Amino acid sequence: MAEFVFEGKKVYYEIHGEKGEPLVVLNGIMMSTLSWKPFIKDFSKNNVLILVDFLDQGRSDRMTESYDHSIQVRLVDALVDVLPYDKVNVMGISYGGEIAVQYAVEHPDKVRRLVLANTAGRTSSWLRKIGDGWNEVAKHKDGFAYYLTTIPVIYSTEFFEKRADWMDGREKTLKAYFSREDVLEALIRLTDSSRDYDYVDRLHEITCPTLVISASEDVLVPPTEQIILHQHIKNSSYVTINGSGHASMYESPSAYAALTLGFINLDDDGINV
Amino acid sequence: MAEFVFEGKKVYYEIHGEKGEPLVVLNGIMMSTLSWKPFIKDFSKNNVLILVDFLDQGRSDRMTESYDHSIQVRLVDALVDVLPYDKVNVMGISYGGEIAVQYAVEHPDKVRRLVLANTAGRTSSWLRKIGDGWNEVAKHKDGFAYYLTTIPVIYSTEFFEKRADWMDGREKTLKAYFSREDVLEALIRLTDSSRDYDYVDRLHEITCPTLVISASEDVLVPPTEQIILHQHIKNSSYVTINGSGHASMYESPSAYAALTLGFINLDDDGINV
Amino acid sequence: MAEFVFEGKKVYYEIHGEKGEPLVVLNGIMMSTLSWKPFIKDFSKNNVLILVDFLDQGRSDRMTESYDHSIQVRLVDALVDVLPYDKVNVMGISYGGEIAVQYAVEHPDKVRRLVLANTAGRTSSWLRKIGDGWNEVAKHKDGFAYYLTTIPVIYSTEFFEKRADWMDGREKTLKAYFSREDVLEALIRLTDSSRDYDYVDRLHEITCPTLVISASEDVLVPPTEQIILHQHIKNSSYVTINGSGHASMYESPSAYAALTLGFINLDDDGINV
Amino acid sequence: MAEFVFEGKKVYYEIHGEKGEPLVVLNGIMMSTLSWKPFIKDFSKNNVLILVDFLDQGRSDRMTESYDHSIQVRLVDALVDVLPYDKVNVMGISYGGEIAVQYAVEHPDKVRRLVLANTAGRTSSWLRKIGDGWNEVAKHKDGFAYYLTTIPVIYSTEFFEKRADWMDGREKTLKAYFSREDVLEALIRLTDSSRDYDYVDRLHEITCPTLVISASEDVLVPPTEQIILHQHIKNSSYVTINGSGHASMYESPSAYAALTLGFINLDDDGINV
Repeated sequence: MAEFVFEGKKVYYEIHGEKGEPLVVLNGIMMSTLSWKPFIKDFSKNNVLILVDFLDQGRSDRMTESYDHSIQVRLVDALVDVLPYDKVNVMGISYGGEIAVQYAVEHPDKVRRLVLANTAGRTSSWLRKIGDGWNEVAKHKDGFAYYLTTIPVIYSTEFFEKRADWMDGREKTLKAYFSREDVLEALIRLTDSSRDYDYVDRLHEITCPTLVISASEDVLVPPTEQIILHQHIKNSSYVTINGSGHASMYESPSAYAALTLGFINLDDDGINV
Repeated sequence: MAEFVFEGKKVYYEIHGEKGEPLVVLNGIMMSTLSWKPFIKDFSKNNVLILVDFLDQGRSDRMTESYDHSIQVRLVDALVDVLPYDKVNVMGISYGGEIAVQYAVEHPDKVRRLVLANTAGRTSSWLRKIGDGWNEVAKHKDGFAYYLTTIPVIYSTEFFEKRADWMDGREKTLKAYFSREDVLEALIRLTDSSRDYDYVDRLHEITCPTLVISASEDVLVPPTEQIILHQHIKNSSYVTINGSGHASMYESPSAYAALTLGFINLDDDGINV
Repeated sequence: MAEFVFEGKKVYYEIHGEKGEPLVVLNGIMMSTLSWKPFIKDFSKNNVLILVDFLDQGRSDRMTESYDHSIQVRLVDALVDVLPYDKVNVMGISYGGEIAVQYAVEHPDKVRRLVLANTAGRTSSWLRKIGDGWNEVAKHKDGFAYYLTTIPVIYSTEFFEKRADWMDGREKTLKAYFSREDVLEALIRLTDSSRDYDYVDRLHEITCPTLVISASEDVLVPPTEQIILHQHIKNSSYVTINGSGHASMYESPSAYAALTLGFINLDDDGINV
Repeated sequence: MAEFVFEGKKVYYEIHGEKGEPLVVLNGIMMSTLSWKPFIKDFSKNNVLILVDFLDQGRSDRMTESYDHSIQVRLVDALVDVLPYDKVNVMGISYGGEIAVQYAVEHPDKVRRLVLANTAGRTSSWLRKIGDGWNEVAKHKDGFAYYLTTIPVIYSTEFFEKRADWMDGREKTLKAYFSREDVLEALIRLTDSSRDYDYVDRLHEITCPTLVISASEDVLVPPTEQIILHQHIKNSSYVTINGSGHASMYESPSAYAALTLGFINLDDDGINV
């Protein structure tokens, strides 16, 4: 619905809703603005929702060379400059949460409240190997192998069983999508951009009220990583969505939306017990 | 601020806020409308907040004889009848959550959304003994013994250490309060009213969207009890507030308020992924 | 079966078994050598089992004045001096685990392997209040109130339900036992002896192989305390007995015995992967 | 050290130790008798240790066509027939635990005690997809892609970081090993043999004392699967090794060995509290 030019690249974004606290939503690695469609009604009822595609995602421009997280952090800054707000609330999941962490550290004056779901403060050597595996598999240009390597792992066993039909649909769609060379190349670059991320030593610089969300069955960015976030971000609350895997916004949409909206709409004064 | 007569007894309640979904809040056993003071600003910003004292609590009338939960469930029904809403959202913690469970089972047409924090679906034989212990201690009319037996156990070790000054204040206040004979008699009756509570077999009758909240360090009504709620209430989401004890609304006020407000303000349509 | 004199007091102990690694077992606060009766056969099959009553426990002498943990630590040292071993393996539960911690810190040369079940590295301010509550209740010389305050809390809800008959038996026995003034006075002193215990800063001095055991439903010395032990004791392994409360040796006797015996009978060389 | 012929195939096995309860150890899918080398000293000190390579593993014969678990279950039965014992104790991890489950169901008279580590009672639809992914990647005959897809996921982040050198060694060795076509073909068959495994409805037929072991960071066969085992196997104890991933015997060798040896060496009478 809207776009702006950032460092020579077109960035796609959408604005939904007209009043209330602005909420900037940052996508996970294999998501796009489209992924949030089921949430738009709730997220824009009492808030102005801003969705955006990172570079190499959705309807934003593709990159040609490798990069690291910093370019996406600058993209968020450019997006916020385009918006008519002094401060925004930011919710990010996974990759998007990691960009949110860095944005909040670099621009503390622009973030009112922060929600970090299924997010790490660094790419552990373990997670780096998992990402390397995705990219090694991607080289073989086998959309099905890539699907099987990257997607089931982000859902819980319980969800996989309960929503078998939905998962079958995902498999069909994504198997085809991941068979496109341009898609795999973009995903390789996105994955590689996380290799050297480590902001653990700077987490303490985040001072805005922050909500850290784990999912109990998240095997990709498990609760041990969110505990690190909670321990270092002084003004943070920490909750777990039970029974959910890494794609917690799809597995537990009500809990996810309640946490996000409830937290960003709390009063500035805080609740002083 | 307001009262009505119910079965010959005066019931005290308060209404805060003017617009938005109505939220009826039901107290834990040793709480009263006063306990929610730090939450009023947030709870009434976009919602109409209704606080109420159960019989034998706060500014509602004292009882003289023993009773069970059913009278408090009828009290809630009478309260809702006084209010100008077809349906209300109900949030209850502990004792209040248990009354909320029963109200939702008995009056499914009157509950739009339900939030159950630190709540059980039954009084286990274990919890019954804990309650019997409170009442056996109460007989000795030793306010300090009663304080030590009932209050520290509802906070986490971490909170107890971090908020030592606040806990000292609670001790001073409550030691005096629990030294009053009328207070102990009311608490004995309230505790006894839970002895035979068991709605596990009827939990499946709750059909409204329900949010079940555990606190990871709750030793009084531990997560094993909320798992029962979640398993039997079909349309329920289940989250845990990490690091918090039984008094989760005081230990993690931001998470608690975010969950409550976020959940009751979700759209009727649900989020269909 | 045997006794020795320690600082003018008689200390009762038992030796079972004839060969294998010696295992000194240290009791929880309300236990005695008698409590281990169901374990004697297994514990003495391939090991020499040494049971002992602390001062103010079982068949050891009663004290008359207050004391702290240090006297029990010296008692263990005196016991080990009586035994014909250069080094012993020590398993302690709760209070006994805390004495074991201190013994291992003070006498690193005498402990071969250490098993710490349901044990803390310090008496937190929270646990101190719980103990103060027990003692405040004890003053009223009401055996039933003392039973209800101290015993149900050490079992899980699940065990309490499954073993209702056994719990009824405990209630009958202990209600009578706790009605004896000398018993309550000894328990008051034992509880008070833990008030100032804090060895967190010295845990790193424990260098022998150590097994830390949590019980998932332990509400008195919850896993958060054993995590502290594990983090500070370098050469430690850390397991959880699921579903069990504080009295884990009674709730999960097979797991408890397997862990203890399996660990102390491992080879000195360790397992080097 | 020894072999026997089973259904026309050579089966390799080893016996270590001379006295005590016999312990048959069943390997995980990518393991072999060699994997247990660091454990031989402890496992054979007071027990007769029997290691064995399944078909398509280690020094046992390779298969040429696809098969399911039942052939490995029959192999275990043939092995036990070769041994001079009426009953054996069986410990299995992952794939080996699943074969152990089936052996215990089919031959209840031959199993004295059972230890199931990182084991499921069925191959969930989720785990089936993970296995399909391994096999889809294997088709590309890229040893590095196969390593990255199958190995890091079986270790915890913490272990991966602490033992970086050891993991680098594994990577070098296994990358080469997985580049062999015969190896990949055997692994494809082993993985496929698990596709239709589902013994949940027969778990209740296991009556021997059973120890179920979870690892808290096991993302492949997470605790939710072991809870199913524990709930259905009546005479089972259930423990968790904290901080460990799927390869729990390597991540926490002392805890793993203590649990196994402690449990199989308990007395037949049980511990009756």
